[in-house]
Amino acid sequence: SGLNKSSKGVGVDVELLTAINVENDTFIERNFTSAEREYCAKSAHPQASYTGTWSAKEAVFKALGVKSQGAGAALIDIEIVRDSNGAPKVNLNGSAAKAATQAGVKSVSISISHDDYQATAVALSEF
Amino acid sequence: SGLNKSSKGVGVDVELLTAINVENDTFIERNFTSAEREYCAKSAHPQASYTGTWSAKEAVFKALGVKSQGAGAALIDIEIVRDSNGAPKVNLNGSAAKAATQAGVKSVSISISHDDYQATAVALSEF
Amino acid sequence: SGLNKSSKGVGVDVELLTAINVENDTFIERNFTSAEREYCAKSAHPQASYTGTWSAKEAVFKALGVKSQGAGAALIDIEIVRDSNGAPKVNLNGSAAKAATQAGVKSVSISISHDDYQATAVALSEF
Repeated sequence: SGLNKSSKGVGVDVELLTAINVENDTFIERNFTSAEREYCAKSAHPQASYTGTWSAKEAVFKALGVKSQGAGAALIDIEIVRDSNGAPKVNLNGSAAKAATQAGVKSVSISISHDDYQATAVALSEF
Repeated sequence: SGLNKSSKGVGVDVELLTAINVENDTFIERNFTSAEREYCAKSAHPQASYTGTWSAKEAVFKALGVKSQGAGAALIDIEIVRDSNGAPKVNLNGSAAKAATQAGVKSVSISISHDDYQATAVALSEF
Repeated sequence: SGLNKSSKGVGVDVELLTAINVENDTFIERNFTSAEREYCAKSAHPQASYTGTWSAKEAVFKALGVKSQGAGAALIDIEIVRDSNGAPKVNLNGSAAKAATQAGVKSVSISISHDDYQATAVALSEF
């Protein structure tokens, strides 16, 4: 029905910029795709970019409304890319794509912001 | 119309974790349901859980687009429960249910996050 | 289609309350309308009101999904007004109205919050 088509899920995540240890290669490679690592490392503030991207992954995960990460979507499969305007977009790969399909998610939009101390991301999913 | 069905309202609320005095029994009992108190008290971080739940109530209130709390929805009637995945859900009771019905709100979704200092919640209502 | 009607964009922005220099008349007049300046100056916390309003403008800009401000919407053309309940609403004027029309944006809703240190705003656009 039209009502179902317009049903939505929301996700928010806040992180202190100190939450992500960008020197921990194992952690970074386990959770960030090569495209994400390239973007964050080249940015003006890699620490803020990594934390904002992490916050975006968590917000998308919440907006998908799927089960805990162990049984559901791995964060590396929730990929945050940038469009030609520099705005963040969500690519769902592997386990995240499968979980989203099972949940009936048609699209996910994302926005990210940070100040000197904290990153915040909000995700919106459409079912 | 289809357009009306997909109309949305958004609410955000941020709170310092110090904003809620969890030792103030009168305040806690006036604003939190017994289910909320049980969840928050048993959580790993009761202070953060109470503040996050408070933030969620405020975000839902804003997303409902109803009049000020005096004439509209009491915060205790905006109940934040957890589903089987641990994700927060909104129950509208009493004055909040009445206000939502009058405003034509069909559903409300909620997401909550906190770091060491601050809780943030975002609510989305569908009309 | 019904799906297109319910398509959404989201925007979030966080700002330290110190981010806006309310003593800088040139900056304030370039970015805030006379109605915004009147509201913020008369509020209980002008610094927080100005920063929250700024944050709201940035969140709306992100939710519109338009090009960079240089080529797109000027922040002064994204006006944040208050309705009779005191809730913030968005008026798109001039370059922002033009950009929104070109992008197919039908409506934008906004919510703002702040604590002692930070303002956060979330905007939701409907296409």
